[in-house]
Amino acid sequence: MSDATALTADRILDTAEEVLRRYGPAKATVLDVARALGVSHGSVYRHFSSKAALREAVAERWLARVSTPLIEVATNPEPAPQRLRRWLAELSGTKRRMAREDPELFDNFHQLATLSEGAVANHLEVLAGQLSMIVADGVAAGDFSVPDAAVAGRALLQATARFHHPSHRTEWNEPGLDDDLEAVVALLLDGLRARPAG
Amino acid sequence: MSDATALTADRILDTAEEVLRRYGPAKATVLDVARALGVSHGSVYRHFSSKAALREAVAERWLARVSTPLIEVATNPEPAPQRLRRWLAELSGTKRRMAREDPELFDNFHQLATLSEGAVANHLEVLAGQLSMIVADGVAAGDFSVPDAAVAGRALLQATARFHHPSHRTEWNEPGLDDDLEAVVALLLDGLRARPAG
Repeated sequence: MSDATALTADRILDTAEEVLRRYGPAKATVLDVARALGVSHGSVYRHFSSKAALREAVAERWLARVSTPLIEVATNPEPAPQRLRRWLAELSGTKRRMAREDPELFDNFHQLATLSEGAVANHLEVLAGQLSMIVADGVAAGDFSVPDAAVAGRALLQATARFHHPSHRTEWNEPGLDDDLEAVVALLLDGLRARPAG
Repeated sequence: MSDATALTADRILDTAEEVLRRYGPAKATVLDVARALGVSHGSVYRHFSSKAALREAVAERWLARVSTPLIEVATNPEPAPQRLRRWLAELSGTKRRMAREDPELFDNFHQLATLSEGAVANHLEVLAGQLSMIVADGVAAGDFSVPDAAVAGRALLQATARFHHPSHRTEWNEPGLDDDLEAVVALLLDGLRARPAG
């Protein structure tokens, strides 16, 4: 009874992550998580109404670990060009560190996320939104000139996919990756600075 | 005997592709291909000295089907900005068409290619080289201003990975993909046009 009252959504998600870490995405179901918690699956269903809902919540929490710390960079008062450079380096660095430190868990989370289209789409919106904010600040300060900060933010995220999208994780050990990121970012920054062609 | 004399490298590669199409990358071995051709594996080894050599040759031929037609675009006399735009659209379009027309074969070739690091590295060099040539032409004509055409060509290829790299194939059905490509290319073209910041 005391266990049932202490069964918060957070505790369920902690356990779901542990199940995911140990057994992979196929076992991160309501039933398996309930078993690991020693509670009835009805108790878990009270918080997550389906396997898909639980999966989305696990994916969201994982993705938020990437996007939330970036808010500090995105809202930093430094000039937009430096801020943009630092934000992209940090996104890429965080993903690469996660993949390097625990490759198996990273793969498990990635597989789970690919099944959680809503969570991934939302995550990409959040990241593109932070980039758009930096671009808009740069336009306001006269550093950048773009017709549409939202479109530019989305384009910046996509143009740097090789350096942060998990589909490219097998390429992240290649030598020269930081030089490659630097070259791509330099070209993109020049693009933001340019006056649109008439 | 007449069969043995007609056993060219091209005929072996045709058969290897057929085996790959039907049975997947694990079966595209010298032994399986020899069996499909009705010849001894020694006859195949005379052309390809190992499983890896055969695999590389199959991957190279497949990748050349993408890069070779692009030479015509890269060397076209039209102005570099239009040419660059057309080249990137054609690379993306070719990959997406191949993935759409025969998804299973595309996956098999992709798996085979990921095992053929040399062939892939060479393919990326070829593509980046074509882009660098267009950039250099643009610099010579006064359309572009970049410090290093080779670095810019490589950056252009990487910044557009989402639209041609097979790791992104599951995203190629998303609505708005052409608009996304257009936004990324517009930003990159502005970057090439810009004077480097002092």
